[in-house]
Amino acid sequence: MPELRKDPIVGRWVIISTDRAKRPTDFVREQVKMKGGFCPFCYGNESKTPPEILAFRPNQNGGPPLAKDSPGWTIRVVPNKFPALGIEGSLNRQAEGMFDRMNGIGAHEVIIETPDHNATLATLPEKRIEDTLWAFRDRILDLKQDKRFKYILIFKNHGEAAGASLEHAHSQLIALPILPKQVVEELEGAKQYYIYKERCVFCDIIRQEIDNPVRVVGENADFLTLAPYAPRFPFETWILPKRHESAFENSSSSMFENLARALKILLAKAHNVLDNPAYNLVIHTSPVQDPNNDHYHWHIEFMPKLTKTAGFEWGTGFYINPTPPEEAARFLREASVEIAQPVSVGT
Amino acid sequence: MPELRKDPIVGRWVIISTDRAKRPTDFVREQVKMKGGFCPFCYGNESKTPPEILAFRPNQNGGPPLAKDSPGWTIRVVPNKFPALGIEGSLNRQAEGMFDRMNGIGAHEVIIETPDHNATLATLPEKRIEDTLWAFRDRILDLKQDKRFKYILIFKNHGEAAGASLEHAHSQLIALPILPKQVVEELEGAKQYYIYKERCVFCDIIRQEIDNPVRVVGENADFLTLAPYAPRFPFETWILPKRHESAFENSSSSMFENLARALKILLAKAHNVLDNPAYNLVIHTSPVQDPNNDHYHWHIEFMPKLTKTAGFEWGTGFYINPTPPEEAARFLREASVEIAQPVSVGT
Repeated sequence: MPELRKDPIVGRWVIISTDRAKRPTDFVREQVKMKGGFCPFCYGNESKTPPEILAFRPNQNGGPPLAKDSPGWTIRVVPNKFPALGIEGSLNRQAEGMFDRMNGIGAHEVIIETPDHNATLATLPEKRIEDTLWAFRDRILDLKQDKRFKYILIFKNHGEAAGASLEHAHSQLIALPILPKQVVEELEGAKQYYIYKERCVFCDIIRQEIDNPVRVVGENADFLTLAPYAPRFPFETWILPKRHESAFENSSSSMFENLARALKILLAKAHNVLDNPAYNLVIHTSPVQDPNNDHYHWHIEFMPKLTKTAGFEWGTGFYINPTPPEEAARFLREASVEIAQPVSVGT
Repeated sequence: MPELRKDPIVGRWVIISTDRAKRPTDFVREQVKMKGGFCPFCYGNESKTPPEILAFRPNQNGGPPLAKDSPGWTIRVVPNKFPALGIEGSLNRQAEGMFDRMNGIGAHEVIIETPDHNATLATLPEKRIEDTLWAFRDRILDLKQDKRFKYILIFKNHGEAAGASLEHAHSQLIALPILPKQVVEELEGAKQYYIYKERCVFCDIIRQEIDNPVRVVGENADFLTLAPYAPRFPFETWILPKRHESAFENSSSSMFENLARALKILLAKAHNVLDNPAYNLVIHTSPVQDPNNDHYHWHIEFMPKLTKTAGFEWGTGFYINPTPPEEAARFLREASVEIAQPVSVGT
């Protein structure tokens, strides 16, 4: 059973994986296998993942329903084969002298976004991206019934430099019995702003940025895509719902189509401008026990991994960003959304 | 002039480099040149850096003093040729609608640790490491007289994966007109603990860890080297002075020899156990305007870069560490400090 431990100085909880503990040689020899080889997320290999939790499996030609854990799906959600947290048991909080820990209860799931091994979220049709968003929502609505969980984190690592260990397009979901440190900070910062101004800080940002759109990348009826005023990373980009909504899963159904469109456009533009960059995508949303509030505003943060100056920033919380957000926004605003298809050789 | 901008939600200040703004193609084409080629930090190339601020240049055989910016030095401190902050001007704080910014005033220096292009801090003699620590102290004592600066950050990136852009062994110093976010959090967390317990949290950690030394890597008369209870990264290791001292530069002179020894042993062991890993080393110390206090305790944090799962952790503040600190400490405790010298071929 993994363990959650709290740093006694800054109060940060971390997961310590005791089960799959890594010895020094594991790091030295470790090579991420990205290209070629066996893929557990492709059709026909369904038995190589734990049994599916959810799948969208269109019933073709009115035939009998397709079997679970068989091909024919368009999106498939499975438990992570090497979960960072275990789903069984009750929370057990303990002291260890002056330190605090609890057992690592949680859920860790993988959302396989397409059966096509060569597709990416940037190349998938909008409808498929929308389906992925619906799958996220389904899983949140299911898991939030479990009162052991305080936060459900949905994120995507694309490319080896962003921490992806499998090439096939997928996102991950982690349900946690604690709030991650950065979530606490965002909630607390937004709450202080609300207490002072009685307005949501994100709503204020949206109004100001639309007024003078130097950092705006794009906009549709429901969403605004922008480079934040003080980005940590070059080309860091946020997608925010224009109307106040604190939790992703409470967004009105009609918004998912526009969110899929905003996401597709951002990823396609980033693909073109930055040459298919490695990136992380994180949904920032309210804690599941406090989904409706006036001070927090859910949004998506997109962070391409373009620089290697990461380690220092980790250790200090101090970021040097070599690309002003106004320039990053302009490059993305002016970029094409058409992705050149690779030309097949010999056909 | 670079710009400091504040995130309105979490209050994080970031540096936006407006001078050397990077266009998308700069990232796509950028390749860190590590091996071979011209090195501005080697003997004979002193004119390729800005003029030196400080150098240890032993006067050999009682001859005349060696000239500035000439060979013969053992340690050399120069301004960064591409500084993240500019030294000239007065602080200018401004609003930009709801946002906050100031001009990027600060100092950015490079401490060249050895003239030997092939040496690393792990292979240098203890005396040379001690000299590096003295150089850090000299620079802090000089820069803290400048009242525009609130914090002096000293750090080292070793290896490309840790963000080093030059191979030749060096550290960096950045003097800042603001406190980095993680510094504020550490200070605030330590202060809360002190208010509640009237004891320094680091002193308490030292006492508890020495009592049951499962996470202790090593110890000498002045310093304790340990794996922290809730490390973010595999093999994250801290070196703490055993007696309470809030600021690095106020440590008694007699301690620098033992600090050099503790550092040398840790780096040599990590070199052996982890195969010369890329790493970041950061001195965590009190703000220069508040160097003497009872709640904060300066220390060094060593973070090897062994995993690539970085991007996600950046975006969430949520860390999954696959190596329990007790195991990391045991590997380092039991490791040899002798570094095998490369065998010269043909001699």
